[in-house]
Amino acid sequence: MDASSPATTNLELVTIGTELLLGFTVDTNSAHIGRVLSDRGIRITRRTAVSDDPAAIRDAIGAALARTGAVLTTGGLGPTRDDISRQVVAELLEMPLVFDESVWQALVQRFARLGRVPAETNRSQAMVPTGGTILSNRWGSAPGLWLESPRGLVIMLPGVPVEMRKLLEHEVAPRLADRSTGLVIRSATLRTTGVAESTLAERIGSLEDDLAPLGLAYLPGTAGVDLRLTAWQLPPGEADTRLREGVDRLGAVVGPCAYGEDEADLAAVLLDQLRAKGLHLAVAESCTGGLVAGRLTEIPGSSDVFLGGVVAYANQAKIDLLQVPPEVIVRQGAVSAETAEAMVRGVQARFGAEVAIAVTGIAGPDGGTPEKPVGTVWFAFAIGERVESVLGRFVGSRSEIRARAAQTALFGMLGRARGDRSP
Amino acid sequence: MDASSPATTNLELVTIGTELLLGFTVDTNSAHIGRVLSDRGIRITRRTAVSDDPAAIRDAIGAALARTGAVLTTGGLGPTRDDISRQVVAELLEMPLVFDESVWQALVQRFARLGRVPAETNRSQAMVPTGGTILSNRWGSAPGLWLESPRGLVIMLPGVPVEMRKLLEHEVAPRLADRSTGLVIRSATLRTTGVAESTLAERIGSLEDDLAPLGLAYLPGTAGVDLRLTAWQLPPGEADTRLREGVDRLGAVVGPCAYGEDEADLAAVLLDQLRAKGLHLAVAESCTGGLVAGRLTEIPGSSDVFLGGVVAYANQAKIDLLQVPPEVIVRQGAVSAETAEAMVRGVQARFGAEVAIAVTGIAGPDGGTPEKPVGTVWFAFAIGERVESVLGRFVGSRSEIRARAAQTALFGMLGRARGDRSP
Repeated sequence: MDASSPATTNLELVTIGTELLLGFTVDTNSAHIGRVLSDRGIRITRRTAVSDDPAAIRDAIGAALARTGAVLTTGGLGPTRDDISRQVVAELLEMPLVFDESVWQALVQRFARLGRVPAETNRSQAMVPTGGTILSNRWGSAPGLWLESPRGLVIMLPGVPVEMRKLLEHEVAPRLADRSTGLVIRSATLRTTGVAESTLAERIGSLEDDLAPLGLAYLPGTAGVDLRLTAWQLPPGEADTRLREGVDRLGAVVGPCAYGEDEADLAAVLLDQLRAKGLHLAVAESCTGGLVAGRLTEIPGSSDVFLGGVVAYANQAKIDLLQVPPEVIVRQGAVSAETAEAMVRGVQARFGAEVAIAVTGIAGPDGGTPEKPVGTVWFAFAIGERVESVLGRFVGSRSEIRARAAQTALFGMLGRARGDRSP
Repeated sequence: MDASSPATTNLELVTIGTELLLGFTVDTNSAHIGRVLSDRGIRITRRTAVSDDPAAIRDAIGAALARTGAVLTTGGLGPTRDDISRQVVAELLEMPLVFDESVWQALVQRFARLGRVPAETNRSQAMVPTGGTILSNRWGSAPGLWLESPRGLVIMLPGVPVEMRKLLEHEVAPRLADRSTGLVIRSATLRTTGVAESTLAERIGSLEDDLAPLGLAYLPGTAGVDLRLTAWQLPPGEADTRLREGVDRLGAVVGPCAYGEDEADLAAVLLDQLRAKGLHLAVAESCTGGLVAGRLTEIPGSSDVFLGGVVAYANQAKIDLLQVPPEVIVRQGAVSAETAEAMVRGVQARFGAEVAIAVTGIAGPDGGTPEKPVGTVWFAFAIGERVESVLGRFVGSRSEIRARAAQTALFGMLGRARGDRSP
């Protein structure tokens, strides 16, 4: 560490792009940057999104530098004409742009590997503020920039998610670590599903005070409520100890609705549980139409537990592929306990799986009736010879109903595989 | 319209929540708000995210009011202890909080319908700034607030996405329409897949200047590059005419890589194409593991075209359910043209479908070899008797490779169904 570098503990994020404000792009970069930097003890104190307007970019970066002294920007480094942030920052920091032959050559070579030549518009990507450090981008055409000036530190990254992530990991995080105080901001999450936020808050009650100095946040989402504990700028050992203890105490009060910690995916938790018991899983899906299988196969290594699935969207497919008796569909309807149970037996037999899940329901927006409104979903679970069916009722858009139904299917199987009391 | 209401054409967004800055929550609300308000002629000029810190909330809202005169906030209205924004805003606008019995009774009734009683912590949700208008929330427990003061307009919405969206649609947008100038900000998007951003930029070239005053933005994503044209605060008729003409001109220069406009989902475009030709589709998936079926079934009304699918993740499932000859898997490997072709014939026969897609590949992170690195994916398409297979190579994470493979599968089928030259 250069002894003259000031410690960086707070940083502001400025995201540049008219599209982000118009709302046609969801900003996933900011969350990623928040997680990566928090874990290195750097707190993002504010995030500002501005359009591709030079005055707004200048104002936002200038105010952030004045307030916090360190800014990370994303966006505005690409080859197209709406990308102007490089120039604005060069003027703001009084570090005039110069054409950098090494950046240009790297760009030419990158294009050559893809069998192409750079467009004339790419030349602007080789313009670098005088005195700035180039953060070499091996994953795309626009390099990042690390600019130290009397007004503070400005780090500029491209907005394309894969390039931003790689540069953050390989170029930015190590440089920031050199400027760290040694304290960290760390979080730990207990993930729950199937219980309302206010019910969790009642169960947790005064435990929240006991957990200080850890902060507790409730994060409701389609898949359930996450309970997040955060240690702010503590020594790493103390942060980890307090978080471990805090998660255990939270888990004890919230009960079996907690299915995992941190990034735990319910699908991965279920696969681990089944793997430990030597069980293999098959899935029959109607209204979720592949989402349950998609959740499972998203997990690397799922193939040793998950044998496969049938998306039996049409009734005829339920009959042909899953041996659902046609009279069950006629009499009870495709969305019924009987159909779900027949589907689960059918898919279990078809794949020779010890355990199986079936989902059939009405995701909407059409197809609801007074008796079976949109959001009505029947689940069936087979474990060996035993089959159980459960009715779920969900609210929200088609997409939310499908996502909640997929989560409930996985959670229902997990509870049964763990031997919890049936929910 | 109250003649005394000032026109609102610009508005800032302030999102409140430490979790948003830490990065454990991706901010999808902001994009939604941007889209809804843009279409009503209101431009979001800046977005600021701050933590649950009273000083930061006050500073951000105060600065936004001073700059723009109108602010919409999300977050900080829930029942848990980290929610403090209601109080900060009441102080900032000098509209002291008072307990509102009607809000409380609505809350009690809402809980009663769910068979519960409100927790003591819910009482804070019935505190309302004096003189404020309550935006009744039938979708959750925290009402929104519409606060007009000498310092400007502050609209407060809860952060829970479904509640925020409903309040925005039913309570906020109509009130803002009353304050509109009659000009609109509208966008139109041409969606492309399979061609790089810089290649598109070369094809478009000087057409960008001809399209003025429309702005053009390139939006690269996992599924392809969207080309977005925006008309800024024009009369609605002129905006629509210019956008229609602009999209047509863009479409003419970019060619068949354009598959649709605006929110068009490639899955929906494919379903429409097949529906128009009276064709039915089945899907066999290995590495995408349900994603292609999930994309198709996400579209309401897909069931008249999409018969179903098989997620044949294990080799045995490919053999048993799709009649892939075991010797093909042994000799050519599960990731090969031959296996993909056998899978597509198998699923086509199994469902009695006129057209079918098969996908088999290596999504990683493990399983790659020098000959078949991670990202190698074979696709097969069956149209009637004809079967074609295509090799794809993708980069990125497991999740990105799977998403790109699913998009490519849908696009490959679309091109063949439309009768394009095979890509």
